[in-house]
Amino acid sequence: MTAQESFVKDFVAVVNERQSIRKYDPNFSISKEELEEILEIAGKAPSAWNLQHWHFLVIHGKEAQQRLLPIAYNQQQIVDASAVVVVLGDLEANRNTDAVYDPLVQAGHMTREIKETLAQQIVGAYENKQYARDAALINASLAAMQLMLAATAKGFGTCPIGGFNAEKLMEEFQIPKRYVPVMLITVGKSIAPAHNSLRLPVESTTTWVEK
Amino acid sequence: MTAQESFVKDFVAVVNERQSIRKYDPNFSISKEELEEILEIAGKAPSAWNLQHWHFLVIHGKEAQQRLLPIAYNQQQIVDASAVVVVLGDLEANRNTDAVYDPLVQAGHMTREIKETLAQQIVGAYENKQYARDAALINASLAAMQLMLAATAKGFGTCPIGGFNAEKLMEEFQIPKRYVPVMLITVGKSIAPAHNSLRLPVESTTTWVEK
Repeated sequence: MTAQESFVKDFVAVVNERQSIRKYDPNFSISKEELEEILEIAGKAPSAWNLQHWHFLVIHGKEAQQRLLPIAYNQQQIVDASAVVVVLGDLEANRNTDAVYDPLVQAGHMTREIKETLAQQIVGAYENKQYARDAALINASLAAMQLMLAATAKGFGTCPIGGFNAEKLMEEFQIPKRYVPVMLITVGKSIAPAHNSLRLPVESTTTWVEK
Repeated sequence: MTAQESFVKDFVAVVNERQSIRKYDPNFSISKEELEEILEIAGKAPSAWNLQHWHFLVIHGKEAQQRLLPIAYNQQQIVDASAVVVVLGDLEANRNTDAVYDPLVQAGHMTREIKETLAQQIVGAYENKQYARDAALINASLAAMQLMLAATAKGFGTCPIGGFNAEKLMEEFQIPKRYVPVMLITVGKSIAPAHNSLRLPVESTTTWVEK
């Protein structure tokens, strides 16, 4: 499937097509508009209190990708991909409270009292730094999964990358300390199939409590 | 859409339909087979070194759901849903190394040398407890997102829940210390629309590096 084909794709087919692609066509471009469409779909993920703990740092351009290359231990896919999305988790997602709830209050979908109750809960939760960090990692990862599926549905290959130097990444791209890097995701035109990959049987990943 | 309808669903439609459902038909049942199908799709998520850091504790039965109720601060959806999946992250996912790679070596898809190199990398990474915990949270969350989408594609409602007492959960269901609870996900038949929910514009969640 090429990027030009329809975006309408069966959900289960998308899940099955999404594999970790490591070889990309280095001459293939993806437009900013197409990436924005993917990121918009990614951002429809749920999040705790709807605080949307993700921020996408999009490395989109060969020069920028070259800067990222040594930080990601010289994995060739970093420069061959059409873009690399650095998925960041927001350690201060509580700062989104007003932006997320005030429009609902103004539109009459939520009472001011309920908003204040939620805001108080959020303030309480964010006094705990461990909570803030866990929430950043968990909720940003939800968006990351949806991002990979959205890109796949559009006909692109993706690969999540956990192997990078987080400290150097923060430094090189001047990422504010408000954010924690969660993963890199390469996006591009696949030119070779993914490695063979096995899934553990569902019996071994599941425990049932039926009484 | 009912659970009886086709599983073929457009990917973007599924993303848009997935909303956090809080009101479920308490008399609606979902079979173990249907839940297994959803969990199998969830488990096709990617993970670092393909270690599959998720474990699903499926609370499937009114008595078991009642035990979970106070742990989740008496949210009615816990008992009204047809099942609640406790998504656990595996702090010792390195223990999956042989299970994940040996069959590939045996089938000739991977050399023994490459497997040993990967195994060494994994041993090194898991000497760092912070890495192990981050990886458990991040990778289990990828599967959690895919789980919610798969259930939605099958016509069910879902809601991710972060508000629960993790310590009591571990105790009540005798969860081994190998695992960290990541979130609960209710699954059932929706009987009321989700709350209105707003997404921040993609401009505000994205930073571009194009040079």
